[in-house]
Amino acid sequence: MQRILIDMDDVMADTGQKVIDMINNINGTDHTKTNLIVDAARYKLFNQQYLAFRPYLLEKGFFRHIPVMTDAKDVIKKLHEKYEIFVVSAANEFPTSLSEKLEWLDDHFPFIGWKYTVFCGHKWMIKADFIIDDHQKNLVQFEGKALLFDAIHNQEVDDYQRVMSWKDVERILL
Amino acid sequence: MQRILIDMDDVMADTGQKVIDMINNINGTDHTKTNLIVDAARYKLFNQQYLAFRPYLLEKGFFRHIPVMTDAKDVIKKLHEKYEIFVVSAANEFPTSLSEKLEWLDDHFPFIGWKYTVFCGHKWMIKADFIIDDHQKNLVQFEGKALLFDAIHNQEVDDYQRVMSWKDVERILL
Repeated sequence: MQRILIDMDDVMADTGQKVIDMINNINGTDHTKTNLIVDAARYKLFNQQYLAFRPYLLEKGFFRHIPVMTDAKDVIKKLHEKYEIFVVSAANEFPTSLSEKLEWLDDHFPFIGWKYTVFCGHKWMIKADFIIDDHQKNLVQFEGKALLFDAIHNQEVDDYQRVMSWKDVERILL
Repeated sequence: MQRILIDMDDVMADTGQKVIDMINNINGTDHTKTNLIVDAARYKLFNQQYLAFRPYLLEKGFFRHIPVMTDAKDVIKKLHEKYEIFVVSAANEFPTSLSEKLEWLDDHFPFIGWKYTVFCGHKWMIKADFIIDDHQKNLVQFEGKALLFDAIHNQEVDDYQRVMSWKDVERILL
């Protein structure tokens, strides 16, 4: 059975949308994923606001309630029938997030189970046939096939097959 | 640089000793690692007591204060100069332990850093040249060289090179 590593934030979980919503709420802005991608000045402002926002990521509860990425549940359920799935999150920078991430996975992806979860820093020592991730740093040393999950912060990356949605992943892997 | 995976409980951390001490305290027994290994009836009793004790592992604070295994600090510091070290703990069954384990590592092994920590269920997808672990289940599918760290519960295992102490590890790997 082939193995797929699936990232959590901005891949299974729409963490970016929660961040945008909270930053809009704090600053009275009207950022959206779309206008942040097309408007460089707006994206620069957003990144400044994000620096001030970053401590919120360390707060208890932040990672407990994040919307599930569109179609992630359906497609990952189907993938799970044909592949060995490991959820791999480089989250050890945020110690309090780890138990919340396990609870979130139990809520939304109960068929995966804790034995197939990995919390880490680097990902380069994990071997698999596929990785689905939004960060280039997690793909560069990966020896299998990498799918770059489209996100605001990876628009410049063009070394990997980009997937725009879980429907894209479904077309490629199923 | 060759990579070593090092387990936490009963390898870096003397979790077994803490469990024995607490079980003795609760039950008024006088178990030691030595008498548990040589006395089968005592070990049977201990395992019954352990079943009742197991909920303590889920309590906040249990994993925060565990004694460091003898010589682990010195030897792992030396290994760290010659090898890429990943601490790999199959701890995701105990969600509240994860932040405590990161704090424990920061206290006793600050030179390792969170990027080289892994919390997981299975370990078979992590590739490395060496693994140091006390559980046979973590060694069976490992493709590198496995060192079985001696523990009360692995006395029957004889498929791997057994190390009795961190001094043993030092002799083999340094």
